[in-house]
This record gives sequence, C-alpha cells and structure tokens, in this order.
Amino acid sequence: MRQDHLITATQLSRDDIEAVLDRARRIAADPAAFADRHAETVLALCFFEPSTRTKMSFDTAAKRLGADTIDMGTVESSSVTKGESLADTVRVIEGYADAIVLRHPSEGAATLAAEFVDVPVINAGDGAGQHPSQTLLDLYTVRENHGLDGLTVGIMGDLKYGRTVHSLAAALTNFDVNQHFISPDSLRLPRSVRFDLHEAGAQLREHTDLEDVLPELDVLYVTRIQKERFPDENEYHRVAGQYRIDAGTLADAREDLIVMHPLPRVDEIAADVDTSGHARYFEQAHNGVPVRMALLDTLLEGTQ
Amino acid sequence: MRQDHLITATQLSRDDIEAVLDRARRIAADPAAFADRHAETVLALCFFEPSTRTKMSFDTAAKRLGADTIDMGTVESSSVTKGESLADTVRVIEGYADAIVLRHPSEGAATLAAEFVDVPVINAGDGAGQHPSQTLLDLYTVRENHGLDGLTVGIMGDLKYGRTVHSLAAALTNFDVNQHFISPDSLRLPRSVRFDLHEAGAQLREHTDLEDVLPELDVLYVTRIQKERFPDENEYHRVAGQYRIDAGTLADAREDLIVMHPLPRVDEIAADVDTSGHARYFEQAHNGVPVRMALLDTLLEGTQ
Amino acid sequence: MRQDHLITATQLSRDDIEAVLDRARRIAADPAAFADRHAETVLALCFFEPSTRTKMSFDTAAKRLGADTIDMGTVESSSVTKGESLADTVRVIEGYADAIVLRHPSEGAATLAAEFVDVPVINAGDGAGQHPSQTLLDLYTVRENHGLDGLTVGIMGDLKYGRTVHSLAAALTNFDVNQHFISPDSLRLPRSVRFDLHEAGAQLREHTDLEDVLPELDVLYVTRIQKERFPDENEYHRVAGQYRIDAGTLADAREDLIVMHPLPRVDEIAADVDTSGHARYFEQAHNGVPVRMALLDTLLEGTQ
Repeated sequence: MRQDHLITATQLSRDDIEAVLDRARRIAADPAAFADRHAETVLALCFFEPSTRTKMSFDTAAKRLGADTIDMGTVESSSVTKGESLADTVRVIEGYADAIVLRHPSEGAATLAAEFVDVPVINAGDGAGQHPSQTLLDLYTVRENHGLDGLTVGIMGDLKYGRTVHSLAAALTNFDVNQHFISPDSLRLPRSVRFDLHEAGAQLREHTDLEDVLPELDVLYVTRIQKERFPDENEYHRVAGQYRIDAGTLADAREDLIVMHPLPRVDEIAADVDTSGHARYFEQAHNGVPVRMALLDTLLEGTQ
Repeated sequence: MRQDHLITATQLSRDDIEAVLDRARRIAADPAAFADRHAETVLALCFFEPSTRTKMSFDTAAKRLGADTIDMGTVESSSVTKGESLADTVRVIEGYADAIVLRHPSEGAATLAAEFVDVPVINAGDGAGQHPSQTLLDLYTVRENHGLDGLTVGIMGDLKYGRTVHSLAAALTNFDVNQHFISPDSLRLPRSVRFDLHEAGAQLREHTDLEDVLPELDVLYVTRIQKERFPDENEYHRVAGQYRIDAGTLADAREDLIVMHPLPRVDEIAADVDTSGHARYFEQAHNGVPVRMALLDTLLEGTQ
Repeated sequence: MRQDHLITATQLSRDDIEAVLDRARRIAADPAAFADRHAETVLALCFFEPSTRTKMSFDTAAKRLGADTIDMGTVESSSVTKGESLADTVRVIEGYADAIVLRHPSEGAATLAAEFVDVPVINAGDGAGQHPSQTLLDLYTVRENHGLDGLTVGIMGDLKYGRTVHSLAAALTNFDVNQHFISPDSLRLPRSVRFDLHEAGAQLREHTDLEDVLPELDVLYVTRIQKERFPDENEYHRVAGQYRIDAGTLADAREDLIVMHPLPRVDEIAADVDTSGHARYFEQAHNGVPVRMALLDTLLEGTQ
C-alpha cells in the first residue's frame, strides 16, 4: 500500500488488495515464519464501541506476529468520560503505541484521528461508515474459495445500514464480479451507494426475492436485519422470516455456492446450514487473523 | 489426562489428578524451566461472569508459560449483547486461540462449548455446576501440606449452593479421606450430591456444630454463607455468626490443622486467623498459578 | 531508591529523583537496549477507578521492558463487588505478579497495600492523595527542557483538590525553583499543603491573576478546574473562563516558556496553543513511558 493508514476500502486499488491477500496467504501457510516479526511493536486497541470478534482478532493477529497490545478499555473505564476530545486521546496514545486500531460510533472518526497522529491508524468501524479490514477478510474468503474474477455474488439482508456491505460492494468493483443485491424495499442499498457503485463501473442488479437469483450465485453474503430498524415488531418478523435461509432454501443453489456472514448472526441462517457444505462464515471469521496479520505487517513495514 | 477438555472434577481419575499435581510441583520448584514452553500459544479468556482471581490466575499461568492471552472482555462490551449463541461465539474464538477458558452463568455451558470446538476447553465455573481447576489447586494445597491419604477433612459453610464444595468432595473420593460436612440445616449438602458421594464410596458425616468435629480435623475448608440465600436478614446474621471462625475458635484444633477458603472471604474468617499458623488460604490462591500452568501444559501437549 | 515501594513523591530525595530521571533518559535514548530486560516479569494493573493514560502508559512501559501485565479489570467485573477487602485482594495478587500498580479512590490505599505485600507497590493515585509517577514524568519533562535548577514555575487552576499539583510542588522543593501558584480564591492551595511546602523550604507566592507573573515563568503547569467543585454553574463558567489560556494569553510570555498539563484537558487550553511552540503536554504524556520504564526497572532491580 502506498498509504500510511487504512481508513476506507475505497482507498485500496486492485493491486493493494491483492498484495495484502497474497501476504495473508503466505502467513496462513507458514505462520511460524512470522511469529517473531514484530517483537518490539506495541499495538493500541481503541474501541469506543463494543466488539468481540474484530477486537479479539486484531489482538490475536498482533500477538501471532510477536507484538504486544495495549487496550484502552471500555469508554466507561477511561478518561473519555472526563470529556477529552478524540484528537487529544489519539495524540497521547501515539506516544505509547506503534499503530492504532480505532472503532468509534461517529462516521469520520478514523479520518480525523489519522490527521492528528504519525503512527498508522486502522479504521475498525466508524459508525455507518467503513470497516475496511472486514472487507479484506471477506475478499480473502471469496478468493480462497472461488478466485475473484468471473463471479456472481449475492448480498442479502440489511443493505441500507450495513457498513460491511457498502465496503464490500465498493471493493468488488475492482474485480470482474456481477453483484446482486437482495433485500426488502425498505432496506435497499442507499441511492448514494448505488450511485458510487455505478460510477465505479459495477455490474449490479437489485431483487426482493432470493429465489430469482439464487441458482446463479457463487457467493451468498447474508447480513442481519435488525429489529430496531422497524417501528412495528410484526413487520420485522414478517420481513426477517422472508430473508432467513436454511438448508431447504439452498436446495436450488449451485453445489459450490459459499454462504458468508460477517457475524454475529441471530437467526438469519439456520443451524442446518452450518453442516450443509455451503457454510463459510466461521472460516471467514477465522480468516480475520492471517488477513489482519498481513495488514499490520504491511503498515508497520511502511513505518520502518 | 486422556481428555481433550477439562469440564468436571469427576472426569479425573486418581492418576489424572496426581499427574497434574506432580507436574505443578515440578513447575513450582523450577518455574524458569517452563518460561518459554508455549511461546507460540494464544489462550482465550472468556468470562461471561465477573471474576478476579480465576481469570488473573489463568492469565498469569499462560504468561508464565510464555503464552499470550486474548480476553473476550465483559459481556456488556462484547457481541453477546447482540444475541449471539454461545456455540457461535466459541466457534469463532476457536479460530483465534489454541485453548479456551470459559466461565458462564449456565450449568452445562462448558460441556456445550466443548461439543462445538476442537481446541481444549477448560471449565472455569458454570453456574452452580463445576469449577474443576479450583478443585485441582485445592487438592494441591492439601497434598503439599498433609499428603492426600489418611486424612480427616471438614468442609463448612454453604454446602448447598457451593460449586467449589461439590467438586472438591467428589474429587476427594479418589483418596483415603474422611469427609465431615458442617453447615446449618438449611444449607446442607443437596441430597443428590450426598447420593453421588455415597455411590463413589465416600466416608462422610454431617454436623451442625464445628466443635463436634474440630479436634479431629487435618483440614478445615471454609466457604462463604451468602446473605442473599436468606429471606430474613436477622436469620442470616444469626447463622453466619455461628459459622464464623477466629483464633479463639481454633484453640481446640490440632496444631497442624490447615484452614482453607476459596476466597473472596467477607467475614467468615477473622483477621486473627491470618497470622495463627493455621491459615493456608493465600497460599491456596497462589497455588492457582503452578496448578493452572500444569493444567494448560498438559492439555496443550495433547494437541501437539 | 532505598525504598521497596513508591507511595508518595515526598519519600524521594533529590538523588532518588535524579537517578530515576537519568535512567529514563538512557532508556529514551536507546529503548532497544532495555527491550528484554524483564522478560520473566509479570506486572499487575489494579485500577479501582477509571484511567486511560496512567494505565496504558504503565502497560506500555512493562511491555517495552519485555514484561507481561495482568489486569484486574474494572471493579464491576471483579470480586471486589463481593465485598473483599483491599488487603485480601492485594495479598492474592502478590502470588501472581512481581509488582503491583494500584489506583484507588481512598487516600492511603497504597500505603495500606504496601503493608500487606512483599512485592513492590506503585501508587498510581489514591483519592486526593498522591500520584508520584506523574510527578516523576512532570519533572522529567521540565528537566529535558530547562533543567531543574534556577527556574521559575507557575502552577495554575485547581490547586485545592489536585493531587498532581500537591505531589509536584513537594518534589520541586528539592530543587532551586521559585513556585508561583495561580488560582481563584476558592481553589487556593490548602493551608496544610502550604505549611508543608514552607517547612520544606519552598520559595512560593500566590496570585489570582496569571498576568502578574506570566512574563517571569519558565514553566506554566495548567490543571483543570472541575465543574463539580462549584455549587453554581454561572460561577463555574466565570472562573473557568478566567483561567483558560490561548495563544493570545501567551503573547507576554518568554519565548521558551513551556506549557504543561497532566491531561485530559477539557477547554482550559485552547487548540491554538498546541501549535504555538510552547505546548509540551503531549510530550509530557509520552514521557510517561520512559519514566515508568525507569521506575519499574529500579524497583524490580531491588527485588532481584
């Protein structure tokens, strides 16, 4: 990467993406070769919102590179409660750590942080904005299963609010991929996102029914429909039930269809899919480790 | 151990127990020899309930073996609040860590987790169920002081709800130990636990007064009587006062009686016992480190 | 240091202070030489109150010395909620760790802890009491910029409640320093603190207006005036506005005046001071790492 920070998926060219994914593959093949690579590095984990898998997987990635981590802790247990600005917090932490992983409820937080510090900042989710390291592990999972060109990908569920979806869709425009978006009308891809995808040359179509497109798909990426998006609980249950998949739903799918999900799932994927041969969501979560190792290794290399 | 996981104290034979305790003794004698033994290991600490000593002592044990730990954090700061199932949580974490230490409010949680993952699961307390690593450090403390055969052990306090007590009593049936249970009627050992102990060939008697049995004891294991078990606060104070010990209480005890407690204590053991020569509860807590090092070392060996 | 613990800034002689600061300077100049110095050490972080920078900077210091840390977590997630005494908590943790860093809301907590354990205890703030490692990094920052003799230092803001201020003022009596205290009447240095400073031979004067003394200062140490000290919110805003500095305020200052602040700041220092050439508060925060490395290195040396 030519960049010092990782703020959005859109900052990454096809070459950038492939370089990180290639490195991740080398790491996955021989993790021991990377075990002491960053022995004197300290990575700061600054999570202003709850997280399990993103935080634990960056923590694991750092430690499997031989680095240490320091954790800001929850907002409640930190000085943030005393009214400190984000700019001040990161300027202090820059003196402790060699890189900063930041999750924050406000869109643009990582961009702001990166303006104030010299160490690499990795955006681990900024409100409804971006979550680019998730996109990299999603792409890695697709590539290890099917490659990244000549594919037909379906993205289903909450397409309106999901930052994971927006990042992934943008990144896929770098490859020869047909994108199908499946959602209820009320949770369609926002107009601005559709516009950006068209501008980037995306081949995209929208659907309200999975069955219209399921037989063509190489990848089905499912996201959770959140109850709190619906004023009426009955309406939520009706809609969520319609975009829930189980082994029966997948009867018409290609044998090598892979089902992905950023997790956590609630009940949008039934347990019988886990053992169906299509499920890749746990593998996808596990890929967070080599991909984030590759990302850290790349960004830290740039600082040496 | 023949097992991949440590779920209950009852899964351990006398040979299993002695093997772990022997290893713990070797570690305590020469910790430096074990300092780099698991340098590329990552241990996940998944505590769905508050804990100080169990969590810190597993954390210490891992680090004194050269391993790293990753911490799920509190439930409030994790994805668990989004409704993820325990099975999904551990299947994700299995991709990050080489072993999982799990504490959970629901009995059976560790058994369930172990069904879903291939890495070793250590039960660090599941509701009113089991807490087998506590039992191992209890046995280690008894053995280092008195050996484990030909003993008379008194267990006092809340015998109805205490998972520590149930695990310890079961494990002691592997040795030549007379067990005396001292408690108010309302907090007697549950009928089912008594039944299992009889089946396992335990030599047990029950008492309501400590003085009936104190002079015979080699070990007095005290547990806390919790206020919330009593609908009436006066009744609580009356009962708790009766099962509280101080230096005076121990005047009739054997000189080499050892007093143990799983901690934290509130006031069931007076401060003057700390310096009486009988106290072993801090030593007992400290033994958590070599015993858990031995346990981790044993389980990780099995995975290599 | 001749001491095993670091409890107050007043326990430190001029020689003690200079020895730690000299060591910190050697560490800052060549951190790699210290990177594996305490590879088998475990440091316990016991924070009974929220903290970001103190905790993260001790955590970083330990790791940059090759040591590991174990974290007690928040009070809510620990056994403290079960009613355990501080004495019991630290006596347990002494069995896990080689040194203990303690922050606690009660004045005297660190003194009490040090009476019960044999491993070094470092006071990281005890209520309105002391915070000596902050004082050491403050002194280090002053010394690296101006040396520590022949200086004129202004300390401004909440001089009544600020433990940082009381520790620093006491420590400065070891050096040839004129101390000026600038505050509203209601937040003057407490009589007892003034008395102790006089006893220690301090050269001190008090002011209500910064402009009376600003042109003479080599160092201006600003602290936050807390809203909760004022029964009336208007009064708070009036007072806080008067002790707020910006680039304009500093027009009359010496060119080499340095502005310090223990952080976090809210708005007592305007953002235009950050780039004024006077600001040293981020440098000051960063100095926490080499100074705490030097402190840990000194105390741990004493235990070997």
